[in-house]
Formats: sequence, structure tokens, C-alpha cells
Amino acid sequence: MGTAQPDTRTRIREAAAMLFRRNGFPGTGLKSIAAESGAPFGSIYHFFPGGKEQLAEDTIRTTGPEYMRLVLSLIEEATDPLEALGEAFDAAAATLAATDYADACPIATMALEVASTNERLRIATAEVFADWVEVGIRWFARWVDDPATARELAQSMIMLLEGAFLLSRAARDPEPIHAAGRSMVALTRTAIERSA
Amino acid sequence: MGTAQPDTRTRIREAAAMLFRRNGFPGTGLKSIAAESGAPFGSIYHFFPGGKEQLAEDTIRTTGPEYMRLVLSLIEEATDPLEALGEAFDAAAATLAATDYADACPIATMALEVASTNERLRIATAEVFADWVEVGIRWFARWVDDPATARELAQSMIMLLEGAFLLSRAARDPEPIHAAGRSMVALTRTAIERSA
Repeated sequence: MGTAQPDTRTRIREAAAMLFRRNGFPGTGLKSIAAESGAPFGSIYHFFPGGKEQLAEDTIRTTGPEYMRLVLSLIEEATDPLEALGEAFDAAAATLAATDYADACPIATMALEVASTNERLRIATAEVFADWVEVGIRWFARWVDDPATARELAQSMIMLLEGAFLLSRAARDPEPIHAAGRSMVALTRTAIERSA
Repeated sequence: MGTAQPDTRTRIREAAAMLFRRNGFPGTGLKSIAAESGAPFGSIYHFFPGGKEQLAEDTIRTTGPEYMRLVLSLIEEATDPLEALGEAFDAAAATLAATDYADACPIATMALEVASTNERLRIATAEVFADWVEVGIRWFARWVDDPATARELAQSMIMLLEGAFLLSRAARDPEPIHAAGRSMVALTRTAIERSA
């Protein structure tokens, strides 16, 4: 029976992540997590004594970095930053359309939901976004000298992508993501030209 | 008694808008709307036969255009588009900080929540965003000749602002909004230079 425990824990985590993504933080209850995972209600508190809040923090701190690694994998081998950025946004658009406009940023919805209502979860989302910005700064610093410019480009890439997901999911249309990609390329081109 | 009806209806709408903003669509129930508004539970269905979904659509279609008019009021008298855009983002940052990082886009949280779960409400958010883009196109068309460029700038302004609200609310820091403003100014400057 000892080997069953990791599976139950994983099932609970995966069910929670899926439900938080689909129904949001306030709209997800431990009962639905138990039902979705097939785990006994009591086992949720066994593995996650902090209950729903702990599971939400676990989801944010797991899926947030995963998503960053996915985006980074699209651009880290780049030799031409403008081409790489354009292709990364095009890939995000294709993924979103292929997943029926569901598979976008895994933490944005929860981040907005908890920003003014749950300090522990707000901090978790803030730390994930701050890590994204730091990784982005290191990437843009390969192409521009000024650290403040690299930071602004990293922030703008995240902001354009998040804003584009919002518009594209609402409209069920990948076009805003392509527009965001073109804007990101234009911003980066201008910054590189000034840096040269 | 006839004159009391509009007040009850208004109280229900305002309570619903506040609760949807604070707790999200899945996290808001008619019982809490009744309690918050002080209206009898039955009067909600009297005024809003479609219940929670109708109230959410009413909130989206009312607060979305209101927010657009607010942003437009910051830039519509502009003679210098770059200065106006910078000031508009600075004003959004100041408002957000002054409201304890709560008063941002009134429909973004719900838009993400309903994008894959409620078609009627998704369409309402898509139509509001489409109206924002159209108003933005008309404003940017004052400064750039190419309609596709005006459209891309309008979309980018909304995407940068929405993404900046996400990062700023999570971090409780207005800095991402200022960064978004500088990026929007840079994008617009480049577009105007090409248009000239």
C-alpha cells in the first residue's frame, strides 16, 4: 500500500490544477477535488494539511515555472532574436487554437482572482512572475546592453503575451497573439538598434 | 412603492458587479448578491429572470464600456499622442496604487474565468474588447495612415495595459504599468515615424 500514496497525492494535485484552471480559485471546492481525483476526501488533508489554499499555491508554484520553461525552450537557442520572438508568439497562437482556446497561461486567472483577496496566493503569483521577468532579462541581455532596457523588454513580452491571451481567448481568434508578436518584434528591433 | 423598484434593481446590479469583481463569476452566488444588496432573494429573479448569468452579462456590458470611456477621456483631447499615452498609463498606475491595487480592468478576471466555460458571457467580453479595439483604431488613425497599423497599436495598448494590470496587481507595484506605458510610447513613435 505504501506505493499507492504518491499516486494519490499526484492525482489530487493534478485534479486541483485542472479544476483551478477551469473553475478558478473561488469556484473550486475540496469536494470537487476529491471527486475529480477519485481520492477519499480525508486523504486531501493528509497530503495537503493546508487544504485548498495549499493546493492552489502548489499549482501556482509548479505550473508557473513549467510554463516559463516551455516558452524559454522556444527562444533559448535563438541566433536571430526578432525571428525567435515572432516564432514564439506564432507557436503560442497555434497552441491556443489547437486546444480550443483553453491552453494559455496557467496562472493568470488565479492571479487576478487572488490579487486582492488572498495574500499568500498573491505572493506566490508575484514570485512566479518575478522569476519570469528575471529569466527574460537574461535572454534580452544577450541582445541589448542596457539592463533597464532588457528588463522593460522582458516585462513587455510577458504583458503582451498575457494581454493577447485575454483577447484571443475571449474572441476565440489567434489574431491578437500574432499582433502581440509583431509589436514585441518592433519593440525589440528598436531597442537593439539603439543599443548598437 | 413604484419608485422603490429602480433602487432595488440598482442595488442588486451594484452588489453583483462588486461581488463579481471581488470573488469572480464562479465564486459569486445569488445568496451573496441578495445579502450584499439587501434585496429580498426573490426580487433578484423579478428584476433579472436570467439570474446570476444575466447579472454577470449586465456587469460586463455596463462596466466594460464605462472603463473604455474613462481611458478615452484621458487621451481624446491629445495634441501630442506620445505624451498623452505616457500620461494615460501613469494615470492608470496612480489609480491602481491609490485603490490598494484593486481598481484595474473591471472585466478581465471574469473574461478569463468564462472564456472556456460560459459561451454567453465569453461573447459579451469579446464584444466589449472588440469595441475597445474599434475606439482605439479611430484614435490611433489620427496619427498613423495605415489602418492595419492603427489596429495593431490599439490592440497592443489594450494588451499592454491588461498585462501590466496583471503584473502590477500581483506585485502590488505600479512599475510594470509605467514600463508598459514606455513600451506603448516606443511602439507608437516607431509607427508614426514610418507613417511620415
